[in-house]
Amino acid sequence: MKATIERATLLKGLSHVQSVVERRNTIPILSNVLLEATAEGQLRLMATDLDLQINESVAAAVDQPGATTVSAHTLFDIARKLPEGSQVSLAAAEGRVTIVAGRARFSLGTLPRDDFPVIAEGELPVQFELPVDTLKQIIDKTRFAISTEETRYYLNGIFLHVAEGVLKAAATDGHRLARVTVDQPEGASGMPDVIVPRKCIAELRKLLDEVDGSVGVSLSGTKIRFDLGSAILTSKLIDGTFPDYSRVIPTANDKILKLDPKSFMQGVDRVSTIATEKTRAVKMALDRDKITLSVTSPENGTAAEEVPGDYAAMPFEIGFNSRYLLDILGQIDTDLVEVHLADAAAPTLIRENDKSPALYVLMPMRV
Amino acid sequence: MKATIERATLLKGLSHVQSVVERRNTIPILSNVLLEATAEGQLRLMATDLDLQINESVAAAVDQPGATTVSAHTLFDIARKLPEGSQVSLAAAEGRVTIVAGRARFSLGTLPRDDFPVIAEGELPVQFELPVDTLKQIIDKTRFAISTEETRYYLNGIFLHVAEGVLKAAATDGHRLARVTVDQPEGASGMPDVIVPRKCIAELRKLLDEVDGSVGVSLSGTKIRFDLGSAILTSKLIDGTFPDYSRVIPTANDKILKLDPKSFMQGVDRVSTIATEKTRAVKMALDRDKITLSVTSPENGTAAEEVPGDYAAMPFEIGFNSRYLLDILGQIDTDLVEVHLADAAAPTLIRENDKSPALYVLMPMRV
Repeated sequence: MKATIERATLLKGLSHVQSVVERRNTIPILSNVLLEATAEGQLRLMATDLDLQINESVAAAVDQPGATTVSAHTLFDIARKLPEGSQVSLAAAEGRVTIVAGRARFSLGTLPRDDFPVIAEGELPVQFELPVDTLKQIIDKTRFAISTEETRYYLNGIFLHVAEGVLKAAATDGHRLARVTVDQPEGASGMPDVIVPRKCIAELRKLLDEVDGSVGVSLSGTKIRFDLGSAILTSKLIDGTFPDYSRVIPTANDKILKLDPKSFMQGVDRVSTIATEKTRAVKMALDRDKITLSVTSPENGTAAEEVPGDYAAMPFEIGFNSRYLLDILGQIDTDLVEVHLADAAAPTLIRENDKSPALYVLMPMRV
Repeated sequence: MKATIERATLLKGLSHVQSVVERRNTIPILSNVLLEATAEGQLRLMATDLDLQINESVAAAVDQPGATTVSAHTLFDIARKLPEGSQVSLAAAEGRVTIVAGRARFSLGTLPRDDFPVIAEGELPVQFELPVDTLKQIIDKTRFAISTEETRYYLNGIFLHVAEGVLKAAATDGHRLARVTVDQPEGASGMPDVIVPRKCIAELRKLLDEVDGSVGVSLSGTKIRFDLGSAILTSKLIDGTFPDYSRVIPTANDKILKLDPKSFMQGVDRVSTIATEKTRAVKMALDRDKITLSVTSPENGTAAEEVPGDYAAMPFEIGFNSRYLLDILGQIDTDLVEVHLADAAAPTLIRENDKSPALYVLMPMRV
């Protein structure tokens, strides 16, 4: 293999693939990136953690087609430090790859390309396109609710399914739920319910910032592929059953509070200053058009703030985890947020309005 | 105590004092800031860790003079989150302090002001002024060499002393030494040799970015005070003997290398990409007007880069800790750096030129 490539092009490609590579690996080749120079003048980069695989393709001047694998993080660090605008020559021979740029020369150990594991995609019968902005919205408005509890592995991702003629995305950790509904894309009808793992979501979201237009999605019951043009992300799906979350979305909460999400958020943020790590609870006392947020910490003291709001139902008090509340309020883009309450122990619904594609359910805390 | 103060003014004062307060304290009152409202319309803030004390004074509308102490980090966090431009009222009574701004109200526990420890300055007979820029230079060009080894406590600071009609500042960790020489300020003659602790240096450096003109320095053999106008920093000095560092500064190194510090630094940075945490060594092979930097890592491979330089002495090889070398080169502001070498085992002198106030000594590593 022998190829020459612009440093900026190489760096960009490597920056995508290296973040898929875990810092610590028990299988040495998983630390490596597969480099393949093709006769068509392309350098193909590929990295995997056995669950998630990224393929990237960049333009290169190829003298001799071929392939090898080399430490992804080391090659990325080298590319980062090479002089701007330099041409990088990559040459593999006899178990080494030589990298030359300007007056600098590196020689790194390689591992055989044939040992590099590739995720067998199998057939991906369901195929559709999603606009980049729609995919961003799905991710941004749900990912914060993804569970990080390893034992509840079936909650460690975003659940995608089609129902009632729409595509629904949901994430929950048992304390809060986020759901987004978007138009069902052509080709998605009959798709299996899938859970896309958190790491795939994170890598996908980073890549989305660099593309326009739409993303090709292909999936089966066990794999999903996102085609972003020069980069392709392939991931195994979480093999589990996502709970029937629709049952926890309250439909008959009759106490409606409407308020400005910004001042609500700032108030929650301020009073929770004195909350300790253990007790993140903020109390909301609802009274006619007046909401009093308060936190009491045996250690630090008390904090209270009144927030104006539109409320006409029975006065009562309810508590929430302040961080969860802030996470949700941070996703509200309108000037008014609706909070649908039942009582101090019942799931509470939060949404922009009845037309908004996203809704959030938050379990109260005893305060 | 009752006073009203602009949020921005309070925040700025607290940002200075809170960084002196350690996050964890076995003595509760050391977590607190002393607030004192004076009849002269000032709010005085004070914090201490028993070794370093900061006093700050800001303008306030004082309704009732008095003093209390309250958690520094909590008050700082509250001030940070209060609305911009708001007026903050502080009122202390019956073991609590009430903080009100806009619609937010906080009540925090206090500890008696009489329990607050104050560093007894004693007499500080030596007094002089140092221009802010001179003090910045002293700190910036030496602090990176301060030892962090607790057992060598006498190296955990910057050594200040007057000798040969100049004020000298030095720091070393046994592997490298940095020394800066500045004009001896009026009033400094006969001053005792002092070691200013690292934490005092760090806090002082932050404060220097916010002042102009000059800083008043007062010291005895055990304490030092820096008067920066609205802020005063008082620190105990390190009770130990700084080694006679002048003996390690080589004076007869006869192999002189002159080169561009920037390309030298970039070369060292690049080849050290493949160095592991354990072996940070970079080898320099000096030949007539040609320096070859190289790193060999059994784990990663090899790296080499040629750097142009002006060298006419005998060819030889020498190794340095790449991070130490980068630290020193990062302090070179000129287009040319002088490296004075003797042999592969001898201390090496690095400086801008024979007129530069700063010089650096670096011990080689076996490579």
